[in-house]
Amino acid sequence: MSVPVLYSQRVGRTSEPPISYLMQQALINPDLISLAAGLVDQESLPVKEVDRAVHAILADQRRGCAALQYGTTDGDLPLREMLVKHLAGLEGRTPESLGLTADRLIVGTGSQQLLYLVAETLLDPGDIVLMGVPAYFVYMGALESFGTRMIGLATDEGGLIPEEVDRTLARLESEGELHRVKFVYDVGYFNNPTGLSLAAERRSKLLEIVQRWSQRHRILIVEDAAYRELRYQGDDLPSILSQDPTGETVLYAATFSKPFSPGFKTGYIVVPQSMKNPLVYQKGHHDFGSPNFGQQVLAQAMQSGDYASHLATLRRVYQSKLAAMLDELEIQFASVRDRVTWTRPTGGLYVWLTLPAEIPTHRNGDLFQECLRAGVLFVPAEFFYPRSHPEPIPASLRLSFGVLGEQKIREGIRRLAEVVLGKLGVSK
Amino acid sequence: MSVPVLYSQRVGRTSEPPISYLMQQALINPDLISLAAGLVDQESLPVKEVDRAVHAILADQRRGCAALQYGTTDGDLPLREMLVKHLAGLEGRTPESLGLTADRLIVGTGSQQLLYLVAETLLDPGDIVLMGVPAYFVYMGALESFGTRMIGLATDEGGLIPEEVDRTLARLESEGELHRVKFVYDVGYFNNPTGLSLAAERRSKLLEIVQRWSQRHRILIVEDAAYRELRYQGDDLPSILSQDPTGETVLYAATFSKPFSPGFKTGYIVVPQSMKNPLVYQKGHHDFGSPNFGQQVLAQAMQSGDYASHLATLRRVYQSKLAAMLDELEIQFASVRDRVTWTRPTGGLYVWLTLPAEIPTHRNGDLFQECLRAGVLFVPAEFFYPRSHPEPIPASLRLSFGVLGEQKIREGIRRLAEVVLGKLGVSK
Repeated sequence: MSVPVLYSQRVGRTSEPPISYLMQQALINPDLISLAAGLVDQESLPVKEVDRAVHAILADQRRGCAALQYGTTDGDLPLREMLVKHLAGLEGRTPESLGLTADRLIVGTGSQQLLYLVAETLLDPGDIVLMGVPAYFVYMGALESFGTRMIGLATDEGGLIPEEVDRTLARLESEGELHRVKFVYDVGYFNNPTGLSLAAERRSKLLEIVQRWSQRHRILIVEDAAYRELRYQGDDLPSILSQDPTGETVLYAATFSKPFSPGFKTGYIVVPQSMKNPLVYQKGHHDFGSPNFGQQVLAQAMQSGDYASHLATLRRVYQSKLAAMLDELEIQFASVRDRVTWTRPTGGLYVWLTLPAEIPTHRNGDLFQECLRAGVLFVPAEFFYPRSHPEPIPASLRLSFGVLGEQKIREGIRRLAEVVLGKLGVSK
Repeated sequence: MSVPVLYSQRVGRTSEPPISYLMQQALINPDLISLAAGLVDQESLPVKEVDRAVHAILADQRRGCAALQYGTTDGDLPLREMLVKHLAGLEGRTPESLGLTADRLIVGTGSQQLLYLVAETLLDPGDIVLMGVPAYFVYMGALESFGTRMIGLATDEGGLIPEEVDRTLARLESEGELHRVKFVYDVGYFNNPTGLSLAAERRSKLLEIVQRWSQRHRILIVEDAAYRELRYQGDDLPSILSQDPTGETVLYAATFSKPFSPGFKTGYIVVPQSMKNPLVYQKGHHDFGSPNFGQQVLAQAMQSGDYASHLATLRRVYQSKLAAMLDELEIQFASVRDRVTWTRPTGGLYVWLTLPAEIPTHRNGDLFQECLRAGVLFVPAEFFYPRSHPEPIPASLRLSFGVLGEQKIREGIRRLAEVVLGKLGVSK
């Protein structure tokens, strides 16, 4: 008989992903309407576009062979050059005016891997990361495994509040902890879970604050733009990256899993020039480069125009799903609009609903369990707050409109409303 | 002005990959014949096979959409079930008799990512890994970044010597360090860099020794079978995994980058049941699953029989490249066969050549630099030994026959021989 395996300290700080519990519920009860799943709409995935791109690549034997060979650790150079132009296009600027070169880009297995590498490259146990809360729970789980001290900052309709960052840094300095702060993490476009974006004027303000503190102790901004291109209304906002002429403050991560296909998990990050090698060396240990074939497919789809036209279609698909969810929320919660509130995003995949404090949403609570019995699943607020968060967690929940059809979305909201209204003691 | 970025301790233990220097040389001098590159033969990559597989998947809209959606963190279940059968087939056994189930498998971004996750899951700084030397340098670099103490053990024509493992564990126990030993790492099929395999009788012997020690302190065997299917002659050897009825000792890693296409970087690992969750949770932090599309392509190619027929072709291609290299070595070094020796592998991608000790092969040495001037590149022995290796590094070098055509292989060997014979003061 063998004695037990002795794991690393990392394992001791890693727990089962909280979402597993929700996925189990969905498996146990196939009639459940899951407003929890964060996947993308399945039917609109770019089957024809990928078929065309693959065919264009493989019809040419030489090109086909190159696509099936190893790539480079930082990613295919022609793709990175395309991504420079693409990102500059989103900003409505030239790459030159942004100080953007392919050499500052790294392609990864989704933006997730790149965000992981950022953590690995910067964080030792006890180091501090600031973020507005509620925040993206998958990254919080990763940060926790590094022994990171996450400090969740209050947010409002305009997202992260720069003055909160300033105040918190001042407090940490007075506590002698400023030197442990490594970066501010923000999903500034249609945030997961709120669907809200960082207000335009806060972007330059946040940058200014972080750059001021960085004269004493270097702090970075990790700008996660995963949902940026899933915008259904209004104008795009310039990134924080675009306002950083030094190129030394902002790491900008994006993915094509949401606007194109998660089947290839191709993401990229723009980093300060000085950080490129440390990140790429670390990535070399992981996989010496994300799969090359998917990068070639994406490059081909971008070049042919198929990416842009697919995205236009996708926006219409999600826009009408979002409209259905917001409309049904209006209908169902009409009688309690002073007590039940929700965000009205113009992009992304999520709506954030907040109930009166007496109806907590946590998974062991009455509401969550009654909703399960009523056949509807949501992600409770607790998932989106650091474990050690000192303030009470609000009675909120995340609703996803990405996966389901409009009828299911409406039915899910009806089931949710019935439970909530029952608990509030009102009829519709 | 910002002060410098403060990196994690990991970064302090990570250096530029040694192979970068060699790649630079190849870039500087396009006439260089690189017997250093570890890529695969480009012309034989499975363009037609991939085209057929992709078409089969995308021609069916439903199936196409599923392939373009997110997968699961541990990999596509139908693929994992196929891999169970595939591996059992290699062993000439049934999955049941091997205790092999899909639940013990994890699919990753090449076997590299899975070997990385094994390290991350098991190793804290100062922990010990044993391996025969010379050993695969990419994994040594990753282990070094974890602050691992690598102990390189002597090997011979039959690979790792189990008694060396036993002796070393006894020594470590007497030094009070046994508790830091986490695993023995071995590339037991056509090893990178020697091309030699772990002899059949040593497999059960190694297992027995490690299991005996594991009664006091748990030690694992990480069996890296990356080159197993690139066998050009003789019979396959049963894996160490296949001889472990407890299923608790061996982690078996394999990749389809070598026998199929590195463009998809799809690998897998079989692990003890108890280790599955810790590894999968850690992988969840990295990327919550390797790209799904490539997994679907591989599954389709395996199911259609295209994988098997492609592999048969590939074996013929590499067999004749290997034969060309061995033949040219015989011709060129005929006059010095008592002083220059090389391995005669029956599979894999490498030949290991050893010169008299007075001609060291390191990259700042005369031989390496003269070879560069003569237009031929090899990987010097130093790359394949831990930095702290206490014994002298032999005057050996790795020759790859995977990438080049037969004429180039022969010309490369001729250039190498001319320099070597000149240094030995003999004519051909």
